[in-house]
Amino acid sequence: MKKFKVGVIGTGYIGTVHIEILRRIVGAEVVALADCNENLGRAAAEKLGVPKVYTSGDALIDDRDIDVVHNCAPNNVHFGLNKRAIEAGKDVLSEKPLSLTAGESAELVRLAGEHKTLTGINFCYRYYPVVQEAAARVRRGDLGEVRAFMGHFLQDWLFYDTDYSWRLDPAVGGAANVVADLGSHYCDLVQFVTGRKIAEVMAELHTCIPKRKKPKAGVLAFSTQVGGEYETVDIKLDDFASLFLRLDNGASGSFTTCQVAAGHKVDLELRVFGTKESYAWSHVHPNDLWIGHRERGNETFYESSQLQVENTRKYDTLPTGHPMGYHDAVYNLFREYYEALAAKRAGKPVDVRFPDFHTGHGAMCVLAAAVDSQKSGRWVKVRE
Amino acid sequence: MKKFKVGVIGTGYIGTVHIEILRRIVGAEVVALADCNENLGRAAAEKLGVPKVYTSGDALIDDRDIDVVHNCAPNNVHFGLNKRAIEAGKDVLSEKPLSLTAGESAELVRLAGEHKTLTGINFCYRYYPVVQEAAARVRRGDLGEVRAFMGHFLQDWLFYDTDYSWRLDPAVGGAANVVADLGSHYCDLVQFVTGRKIAEVMAELHTCIPKRKKPKAGVLAFSTQVGGEYETVDIKLDDFASLFLRLDNGASGSFTTCQVAAGHKVDLELRVFGTKESYAWSHVHPNDLWIGHRERGNETFYESSQLQVENTRKYDTLPTGHPMGYHDAVYNLFREYYEALAAKRAGKPVDVRFPDFHTGHGAMCVLAAAVDSQKSGRWVKVRE
Amino acid sequence: MKKFKVGVIGTGYIGTVHIEILRRIVGAEVVALADCNENLGRAAAEKLGVPKVYTSGDALIDDRDIDVVHNCAPNNVHFGLNKRAIEAGKDVLSEKPLSLTAGESAELVRLAGEHKTLTGINFCYRYYPVVQEAAARVRRGDLGEVRAFMGHFLQDWLFYDTDYSWRLDPAVGGAANVVADLGSHYCDLVQFVTGRKIAEVMAELHTCIPKRKKPKAGVLAFSTQVGGEYETVDIKLDDFASLFLRLDNGASGSFTTCQVAAGHKVDLELRVFGTKESYAWSHVHPNDLWIGHRERGNETFYESSQLQVENTRKYDTLPTGHPMGYHDAVYNLFREYYEALAAKRAGKPVDVRFPDFHTGHGAMCVLAAAVDSQKSGRWVKVRE
Amino acid sequence: MKKFKVGVIGTGYIGTVHIEILRRIVGAEVVALADCNENLGRAAAEKLGVPKVYTSGDALIDDRDIDVVHNCAPNNVHFGLNKRAIEAGKDVLSEKPLSLTAGESAELVRLAGEHKTLTGINFCYRYYPVVQEAAARVRRGDLGEVRAFMGHFLQDWLFYDTDYSWRLDPAVGGAANVVADLGSHYCDLVQFVTGRKIAEVMAELHTCIPKRKKPKAGVLAFSTQVGGEYETVDIKLDDFASLFLRLDNGASGSFTTCQVAAGHKVDLELRVFGTKESYAWSHVHPNDLWIGHRERGNETFYESSQLQVENTRKYDTLPTGHPMGYHDAVYNLFREYYEALAAKRAGKPVDVRFPDFHTGHGAMCVLAAAVDSQKSGRWVKVRE
Repeated sequence: MKKFKVGVIGTGYIGTVHIEILRRIVGAEVVALADCNENLGRAAAEKLGVPKVYTSGDALIDDRDIDVVHNCAPNNVHFGLNKRAIEAGKDVLSEKPLSLTAGESAELVRLAGEHKTLTGINFCYRYYPVVQEAAARVRRGDLGEVRAFMGHFLQDWLFYDTDYSWRLDPAVGGAANVVADLGSHYCDLVQFVTGRKIAEVMAELHTCIPKRKKPKAGVLAFSTQVGGEYETVDIKLDDFASLFLRLDNGASGSFTTCQVAAGHKVDLELRVFGTKESYAWSHVHPNDLWIGHRERGNETFYESSQLQVENTRKYDTLPTGHPMGYHDAVYNLFREYYEALAAKRAGKPVDVRFPDFHTGHGAMCVLAAAVDSQKSGRWVKVRE
Repeated sequence: MKKFKVGVIGTGYIGTVHIEILRRIVGAEVVALADCNENLGRAAAEKLGVPKVYTSGDALIDDRDIDVVHNCAPNNVHFGLNKRAIEAGKDVLSEKPLSLTAGESAELVRLAGEHKTLTGINFCYRYYPVVQEAAARVRRGDLGEVRAFMGHFLQDWLFYDTDYSWRLDPAVGGAANVVADLGSHYCDLVQFVTGRKIAEVMAELHTCIPKRKKPKAGVLAFSTQVGGEYETVDIKLDDFASLFLRLDNGASGSFTTCQVAAGHKVDLELRVFGTKESYAWSHVHPNDLWIGHRERGNETFYESSQLQVENTRKYDTLPTGHPMGYHDAVYNLFREYYEALAAKRAGKPVDVRFPDFHTGHGAMCVLAAAVDSQKSGRWVKVRE
Repeated sequence: MKKFKVGVIGTGYIGTVHIEILRRIVGAEVVALADCNENLGRAAAEKLGVPKVYTSGDALIDDRDIDVVHNCAPNNVHFGLNKRAIEAGKDVLSEKPLSLTAGESAELVRLAGEHKTLTGINFCYRYYPVVQEAAARVRRGDLGEVRAFMGHFLQDWLFYDTDYSWRLDPAVGGAANVVADLGSHYCDLVQFVTGRKIAEVMAELHTCIPKRKKPKAGVLAFSTQVGGEYETVDIKLDDFASLFLRLDNGASGSFTTCQVAAGHKVDLELRVFGTKESYAWSHVHPNDLWIGHRERGNETFYESSQLQVENTRKYDTLPTGHPMGYHDAVYNLFREYYEALAAKRAGKPVDVRFPDFHTGHGAMCVLAAAVDSQKSGRWVKVRE
Repeated sequence: MKKFKVGVIGTGYIGTVHIEILRRIVGAEVVALADCNENLGRAAAEKLGVPKVYTSGDALIDDRDIDVVHNCAPNNVHFGLNKRAIEAGKDVLSEKPLSLTAGESAELVRLAGEHKTLTGINFCYRYYPVVQEAAARVRRGDLGEVRAFMGHFLQDWLFYDTDYSWRLDPAVGGAANVVADLGSHYCDLVQFVTGRKIAEVMAELHTCIPKRKKPKAGVLAFSTQVGGEYETVDIKLDDFASLFLRLDNGASGSFTTCQVAAGHKVDLELRVFGTKESYAWSHVHPNDLWIGHRERGNETFYESSQLQVENTRKYDTLPTGHPMGYHDAVYNLFREYYEALAAKRAGKPVDVRFPDFHTGHGAMCVLAAAVDSQKSGRWVKVRE
């Protein structure tokens, strides 16, 4: 079968992960990457075995050989690149957020519909095998009806006032920081696992470190500066946030997120309380699904290609007990996307079980409601 | 030395714990108990070796031999008994809440001041050795300034609609259920560990189970009904709640509590994020204090009579590694209370490190703010 | 009912625990203690509210008022005191080991039979509620037949060569150190939980620290010396040991113990592999029983006065979820002993479910086999 | 750069993993696979995008285009294929064991020396980032001298008597089962982390299930049979084993392994006790390294590309906190092997930090000593 020719825009941490994982997708071939820093682009291409290098995302999109664009650029150019790629007839798998505003993401959804684009968005946490298992058990009725939920997403990479990121600058990162960057993953998880939509939001966005030392040279995500010149800048965006959330069935829940929580690295946790049992999942030990019972011992279900609900076994690509990691979660999402792409190319019905631009637009709408709530000090309904 | 003669009102689960633990206090002697159900009272007295039995708290308070009253009656009679005991010249150790309203608790504080009563309230969770350790480390400056915090208190004893408790009836339990019963413990923990006061509250109180089957016969806490006749009653009080909280230094935090969370029994957890490190403590494994670091491995500090901050070692009454339990936490609180009582009797300065009626009144004020917030849908300042 | 008058010999760490816990036993009253160091004895008596102080165990035994003797003296005088107490017509609850040799413990069993002594030995770890639960489930058939087992008991209080204990001196501690002190607890647990006897042993006893600095002044258990004069002594006894064990049904198992394992305090763990499921229990989090399944998620069963096998619920003396600690385990053993004593006094049939001198003699026989095995480098059968 | 052309023999579970991971190695290309079952071979080739399919390992080895052979065939043909590949001038990365006897593995080492073969063996567990971290810290002196160690490797895939594997047949699996299959991984870990050699062994090999139902059709590793015809066969090889081990510095340790331990899937654990601190690592949560301290809280070090010892950071190929899995461990080993291969081809000095045929022969010698010990009931020295 002819392979899909893929171009990846952005070679930072997550762009590199995309290329690494695309190597494991049998039907795909990364033929080009783009980075506005030519040296970084060339270095990545050599290291990762990618033949062509562009110095702009636009140029890559204009390459007629390319079938699929992976958008791993910074947030402020997501919208423009996604739009251009759709209009150029490419299929698009984008990092989140799709755009800086919900208006823009709505436009992307509309455009993708017009161009029959197969879109995807990298909400990868739902692709750990036992997250899929939890969702499958909810659909099978094991949990009963969801009554309430809670969770958190904690990191410490912005712990010191000498830590800086473009995410803290509204012009690049958008109207919120941590509640957008980490909150969108949590909201995706909640909605995916429960099969419910977030209907209403009350938000508290807080800035723990109101002045930071921004290095005059740039900074990469997850890197730490050592020495160098900096300027002190006022930080207006949140590095801590709490949400109250209501689902469309009336279930009530909460979420707390923080990027200055010493000792927490990528600590995403979800707890769901149903009428029959409870689930808890933590990204720190991502292969364990905790199942709580009122009348008997609680369970820890370890990812298992043999014991999971049948249609989720494929996400655990090794025999039971061989731990899956972050790479495998991303792989599971990509594989599902490329299987759908193969169906589309073959003219077969396309089964979109993965998160797409509708999903991404939904995330923007929840975020918009949270930002509105912070301004008004009141609950705000989510409007799509 | 002459022993303190103690009377305990109420012989439910917590009254029994009081009597059990008082047996370990060398300077105290339980001379009487009271229960309005005479049969239950007599049975408890025999089992626990208590000589006198009263059938009303008032009668016990009127016993001139009694020096100290432990108030373990239901919430709706807390205020009246506490007031009468103070006025009768007894020293008083009460279960929480002190009363059903903050107005009443303010009156108790005033009365206790007038009568020079030594008061105590059983916020026992802070008496696990490593909770004391966390607080001592905060005071030593290890944590730096507290920036943010979060936590939960989850149970499942009201999981089924056939589970019923007087706590769900506003006439007996007060203006709120879970946010009062469990939230007060969390708020005490936060304030004790950080050394800060809660200044502002935003609340979401939710009723997951709006109709319950109330047994026509009564129910004891933590017990489950099997069969029997019942009536269906509307539940107005919360069995799930979330709070946003602000401390007096501007730190922002959250709290989630639920009594219908299958598999969670007495699952109280606190996380504090400081400018130097983070702490986490969970009642499920109450002898571990987790300490998070940005630049090195995180620590799990196990309670230790040898390695703790010096003035907290006494709370770990066994050699390092011998796990302490709930009984030991209550013992630590009682011991501290009776040491202060011995000082008072001896005319020495009294060191009130334990929670007293001021503390209990503070808890009522936070609760009042939460209930107001729920009504208005807005943040409410705590007023003492 | 007339209370049992109890005398406690030895006021070190464990003697103090005995007195503390005896305060919680309604039918018992500590009327005397003995310590050969008069000052220590008087201080303990005052602190713990004990009226009489003897300066020798023999003198305490000769006190006609005393019904029950608790033997908490050092190992090398256990035998003599146990023997004298039996012959004086006392009932006896002894710390382990009963004696320094299996010949002596056999004699104690014989004497206790002659004098109809109700004996007990403080193998307290089996009295955590979920250890009782595991044993009850084995007897109910849940585990199936035990096929294999393993475990460890790790500590670090002898980690430095400046740590010294009389246990390292064969004249006081006996023929082995760690395999005796900690191994006896493990062997008791294995036999109690499985309901099987250890039939054969292969041992490796090892001395990690062959020279230690013995302080010229004495040392208490679990304490650490700071400064002071010392002499360098050769250590012949084990501070690390491994055992292969065979049960009387042919099941094979292992055990590893060490007192120089940094970071491990009282880390006792047992794993049992049956034909139907597996169990694991660790003293670090003693309220969790782990239950392993081949075909479904594993369970963590938390101690529960509501969910345990019915006849084990009494060992969890609080509502589900209130953690029990070491004190509670000792309390459970003492309570069971004193209930049996009450039955004996009342002339009723005595149900000896607790470990007694037969149990203690069995432990000595396993130890003797281990020491023989170390000498011969071969498997040795246990002979009672 | 010209890519290495790779052929993979065997397309069972582990052969598939090899091909998957080779896709991530930029300098390598899988050009052929071999499986004696042609249908299985063709199916794997199509799924994994491999152009050529052979129906025998010999035929693949004879393919002149192939530079490197990965040997993933069953144990009983390992030796023959490894030998033939070396003699054909290929470089060879083999699954363990290298052969069925230590004599054969010695011959392979000799042949590889003669042919200047770059050999590798897939002891992949040491390639989890924090296992590398532990080894690096030992070499830096953090642990001090190793005094003692312990560990286990538990599985349950042979739990029922209806579970069967060729590993239980001495003609295919060799002289031992679980102590060979799982024990070799543990011994590699111990030796790698401590930097010491195993010098002496005492073994107890036990057969928990002496009769099994062998299906008349074949069985794949980690799969379970459902229905079908079988014959009852006597099992002579071990499904449970314990070892005492002595390292060349006199340190004493133990190991327990079992394949009938319900609920344990790939549960490999190592604990090392040094003169300064202790380490513990478990494959169940493979990104945590536990570090035990006598004088302060114990640490849990989570894999970190930022905080690890510098030369081990590369094994954590994602930002701190993104969990690595089994695939990543295998990738780390393969990457290191192919980097060495690139150096060899370029005529540069080759740095063999990965396990090679010397390592694999060492494992065979320890196993031989264990089997001898079982026969004699005595300690046996390891002879290379």
